[in-house]
Amino acid sequence: MVQSQTLDRTFSALSDPTRRDILEHLTRGPASISELARPTGISLPGILKHVRILEEANLVTTEKRGRTRECRLGPEQMDDATMWIESQRLRWERRLDRLEAIIERTKGEQR
Amino acid sequence: MVQSQTLDRTFSALSDPTRRDILEHLTRGPASISELARPTGISLPGILKHVRILEEANLVTTEKRGRTRECRLGPEQMDDATMWIESQRLRWERRLDRLEAIIERTKGEQR
Repeated sequence: MVQSQTLDRTFSALSDPTRRDILEHLTRGPASISELARPTGISLPGILKHVRILEEANLVTTEKRGRTRECRLGPEQMDDATMWIESQRLRWERRLDRLEAIIERTKGEQR
Repeated sequence: MVQSQTLDRTFSALSDPTRRDILEHLTRGPASISELARPTGISLPGILKHVRILEEANLVTTEKRGRTRECRLGPEQMDDATMWIESQRLRWERRLDRLEAIIERTKGEQR
């Protein structure tokens, strides 16, 4: 089962539009902080702060290369978040299936 | 395309363990505020505050019935969040496919 704190961090990291833009950018390949900053109009320290939050949530990894910091998608990506959401959907669908079965049974009894 | 603010609210709502517990509870069927509070040890006003945040994110709907407030899963549930995460996964997979094609081509040229 996914650790609750991991999910807190993942969902919290995803709750900001700039951070989601950074992740979208990184699906196209690794990028430096300044490459990530360019389309946003946000300062480098501002972007770095967002990248740190994504890094703490394991959604991004960074590596210092000379004078630049290369960012790429983390190995876990959004699997934890997807798994949690999917498990909710399954519970919900099972519940609908049970309700459907009850309705069918009631119909049968009424015939 | 899903509105950015909608995703902000959805992910932010999901970033709290009590709110995720409330959603898990509601996959088993509608519940009152006090039914939701019982397993958590959190006060009724505390739970109501969490429910309000889930309501603003359209993850939960509530209806006043006499002296109790019935809570149930909202119609949209977590579809927006799932859609966004899935779209990222697709981009990422397309990128892996492209990389794979390039590697295959390079191999062919080396033969």
